[in-house]
Amino acid sequence: MVRLDSSAPTFQDDFARLLTVKREIAEDVDEAVRGIIAGVVAGGDAALVDYTRRFDRLGEDFTEGSLRVTEAEIAAAVAACPADQIEALTLAAERIEHFHRAQVPADHRETDALGVTAGWRWTALESVGLYVPGGTASYPSSVLMNAVPARVAGVPRIVMVAPAPEGRMNPLVLAAAHLSGVHEVYRVGGAQAVAALAYGTRTIAPVAKIVGPGNAWVAAAKRRVFGQVGIDMIAGPSEVLILADGHANPDWIAADLLAQAEHDTAAQAILITDSADLAEAVEAAVERALTTLPRQEIARASWRDYGAIIRVRDFDEAVPLTDRLAPEHLEIETADPEGLAAKVRNAGAIFLGSHTPEAIGDYVGGPNHVLPTARSARFSSGLGVLDFMKRTTILACTPESLRALGPAAINLGRSEGLEGHARSVAIRLNL
Amino acid sequence: MVRLDSSAPTFQDDFARLLTVKREIAEDVDEAVRGIIAGVVAGGDAALVDYTRRFDRLGEDFTEGSLRVTEAEIAAAVAACPADQIEALTLAAERIEHFHRAQVPADHRETDALGVTAGWRWTALESVGLYVPGGTASYPSSVLMNAVPARVAGVPRIVMVAPAPEGRMNPLVLAAAHLSGVHEVYRVGGAQAVAALAYGTRTIAPVAKIVGPGNAWVAAAKRRVFGQVGIDMIAGPSEVLILADGHANPDWIAADLLAQAEHDTAAQAILITDSADLAEAVEAAVERALTTLPRQEIARASWRDYGAIIRVRDFDEAVPLTDRLAPEHLEIETADPEGLAAKVRNAGAIFLGSHTPEAIGDYVGGPNHVLPTARSARFSSGLGVLDFMKRTTILACTPESLRALGPAAINLGRSEGLEGHARSVAIRLNL
Repeated sequence: MVRLDSSAPTFQDDFARLLTVKREIAEDVDEAVRGIIAGVVAGGDAALVDYTRRFDRLGEDFTEGSLRVTEAEIAAAVAACPADQIEALTLAAERIEHFHRAQVPADHRETDALGVTAGWRWTALESVGLYVPGGTASYPSSVLMNAVPARVAGVPRIVMVAPAPEGRMNPLVLAAAHLSGVHEVYRVGGAQAVAALAYGTRTIAPVAKIVGPGNAWVAAAKRRVFGQVGIDMIAGPSEVLILADGHANPDWIAADLLAQAEHDTAAQAILITDSADLAEAVEAAVERALTTLPRQEIARASWRDYGAIIRVRDFDEAVPLTDRLAPEHLEIETADPEGLAAKVRNAGAIFLGSHTPEAIGDYVGGPNHVLPTARSARFSSGLGVLDFMKRTTILACTPESLRALGPAAINLGRSEGLEGHARSVAIRLNL
Repeated sequence: MVRLDSSAPTFQDDFARLLTVKREIAEDVDEAVRGIIAGVVAGGDAALVDYTRRFDRLGEDFTEGSLRVTEAEIAAAVAACPADQIEALTLAAERIEHFHRAQVPADHRETDALGVTAGWRWTALESVGLYVPGGTASYPSSVLMNAVPARVAGVPRIVMVAPAPEGRMNPLVLAAAHLSGVHEVYRVGGAQAVAALAYGTRTIAPVAKIVGPGNAWVAAAKRRVFGQVGIDMIAGPSEVLILADGHANPDWIAADLLAQAEHDTAAQAILITDSADLAEAVEAAVERALTTLPRQEIARASWRDYGAIIRVRDFDEAVPLTDRLAPEHLEIETADPEGLAAKVRNAGAIFLGSHTPEAIGDYVGGPNHVLPTARSARFSSGLGVLDFMKRTTILACTPESLRALGPAAINLGRSEGLEGHARSVAIRLNL
């Protein structure tokens, strides 16, 4: 953890270092992933079964027929989950759905004085593939956050893939798929699953776009199939920036910093405060809270390597720092959180006031928890309904409006050396 | 040019071949581009000047001070353009601006029965870099199509870079920059310009996102700097699909096919019709029109290698073929263009009726001409205002609403093995 002070002469350099620190070790799996994708393209289901047996440690009894998770298996998984978990997941799904319904965009059509009709319409993608990691990173909440917006967008085919290492799948993940309207589930993961979604096999029809988190293999595969299909952003390690004044509760702030730090040793948790007392109290509170945290090893490493407490003179000074950090999550616990939030340009999601811990947004707030990391909130947004739709523009000229606009188009076509463009207009006007 | 018939037994295979034909030869410049980017990162302006002298064949008198195109130079360029061209460009800019104003998204805020406030706000990107190619691909209309939506979005800093081979810049490109509200123009191109925009030099401050077309070097550089900055889609060669019945004018259809084909030998122009007579007449009309087209060599190669005329029994049969092609541009010249358009899911832009040649949309229609190519209209949209904005979600709980939602969040946090998440909620509720 570094302690920075905006009044220190070295502050600008220290802060720049915080901005550019590399938190991810890029695993070089690209060549291996290239091979796996080529294998699935050439070998289809048989290759998919082969890779799955090998990587997920499955036996000869895993065959093409095992790929699809049946309705009965999903129903059994739902039945096996504790009722209170299903209830919590249902509440989350409902709130996420309600929030995202307001994102469904409107079509537009307008006819101007010349008689030109112009506008656009939005259509849902024809199909979407949702990657869900296996093992400890298999989060039911992420299934909801990816699948519910796709359903709200109206995607008629939502496919989920998730590895079943040694045959095991998380029942709550299957329950989340069921609750959020996933149409097909396959027990396959890694680059081979991404390849199947992009190119299709006999069992798995190809999709138009692949979304969802994954390890280095999955990320490399998504990069490689981009173009063949759409992909969402490649998510980096999670981050929180907390802006808090001297009235904030240091134990609450510490809990929020550690909720982020426990994700990953590469996660980053930062506090910016105008209060020396709070800075000191939070530092002590983090140490205390760490001692009883189940994932304390992970959280401790994250806090030690990437954590920061930054002292500023006032919060006006914090605004440009926040914009440069462009945090995935921004918590504001000051006297006027709304006022301060209004001054910030770059953040994935903002959590206002001391009763809005970031974790509430991870699950049941309603907004999406798939958010831009690694400073990409400077230029991108969290996941939403628009990621599962696309816009087609519409243009219609009447003979009269073509006569009015045609000469300008002909002029510009010729000025660009594109006589064929000019002629396609001129021929209709006998020019 | 291939002639396909949907009633032929080999049709599905032939059509699949049309879908997967590779129209681009990937130039392998990635290693060279990596070096150039590293050079600009390390050497700043001096490296930028070095590369520019070398690649744009400039002498020792090209220095750091030459990089920026001055206001006086832009004013002189505007004054040097013929008045009719400025007039046409102004009409185009106004219509593009009007169309894109309707795309400015609304913010959203809602407080539910529990007292949870959730919503989002849109903010403009802090800065955008617009790449404009040099030489014959230097299109003033593309400057408008990229810069006007950025201005409409409210981007406070729009930077244009364009190479000046042997010192020459297209005055109409500078006029377009002036008309569309570009704030800074630099005479630098290639991978070195992309590197400067992404990482910044003393003269060129870095931007948050880079948009605009370019050659293989520019495309490779954009791919490499993605993450450091946002990028737009990587555009492939242009395409048109025309759906026309027996009442369509074959000379008009031929003109539209060639307007697309003249762009690039890798462009693709396809006609789908239910009329054998139209198919034959268009084929003859294309040959006739080619003989007088200035860019006939390019258009002839495109039509020969990638052109197609597809006979279908009826237009219901054309709909799934259109969706699989997912054309950048779709012209519909049938009895009921609106009705047919409504059945199509995948297209970048649709041009309705026989008086709406695609070229009108390239210049003065209003909709954007930067559109998804290479079948990516299955999952993406043309350029628009949203590409220059980003959404930040907002969440605010009251103590009471946190009490209502908290237990579900705690439950889900624990079910995912994230006790730190659960505690950040529980600590506020004394649970």
